[in-house]
Amino acid sequence: MSEIALTTTTAGPFEAAVARVRDVLSDQGFGVLTEIDVRATLNKKLGDGTGDEVGDYLILGACNPQFANRAVRLYPQIGVLLPCNVVLRSKPDSTDVVVEAMNPAIMVGVTGESALAEIAGEVGSRLQAALANL
Amino acid sequence: MSEIALTTTTAGPFEAAVARVRDVLSDQGFGVLTEIDVRATLNKKLGDGTGDEVGDYLILGACNPQFANRAVRLYPQIGVLLPCNVVLRSKPDSTDVVVEAMNPAIMVGVTGESALAEIAGEVGSRLQAALANL
Repeated sequence: MSEIALTTTTAGPFEAAVARVRDVLSDQGFGVLTEIDVRATLNKKLGDGTGDEVGDYLILGACNPQFANRAVRLYPQIGVLLPCNVVLRSKPDSTDVVVEAMNPAIMVGVTGESALAEIAGEVGSRLQAALANL
Repeated sequence: MSEIALTTTTAGPFEAAVARVRDVLSDQGFGVLTEIDVRATLNKKLGDGTGDEVGDYLILGACNPQFANRAVRLYPQIGVLLPCNVVLRSKPDSTDVVVEAMNPAIMVGVTGESALAEIAGEVGSRLQAALANL
């Protein structure tokens, strides 16, 4: 089984790290279609302080339209794992930020669809390159 | 390995099905945090007609804040698989709509974290109930 995420660590502050992540994703052909501020969402839905206990935690939904198009045509059900999430979260007891992208290889593992392997491999290489450029 | 999705089929038209899916998710405590119109996105990014070939295809990001809060605290990396996507797509040669929710059980499979099993089981039961109520 593949690791769930491709991971790196980058320097804070958090908002600056978010801007850099968006830039390196764009350089690799990924647009950010969605953004969820988990901290703010939990504070809002569960009461002030709940999200603050989790800390800064952002989920960006990154999509490379060419690869998404190929994946959806090949395996229509794959949308339950799209877009590729990129998570930024504050590292405990540090000003650093952990950046983690969903490892596209898990798409092959959970579907058993070997034809997705080529797409997953290419997307994974681009996400890895994006993280390496932080 | 668990199936990637919990699946059902509901009657069209598509927009009415989307409204019903939002209602049944809400009844089970899921808010919809994100919405991606894959058809429109592909038409916009790859040229008119590309998304139309795929057909109606919507990805809703459904979140039950209580369970998300528990999952993130237990396994911070789990955000790469959050929120739980619910996909609606037109069924080929039919007016029916296929509705598929990410099977939360795959979170346990891909992380190897057995402590997530209880949360995944409860979320899966609620998603299954939502689909059954369509």
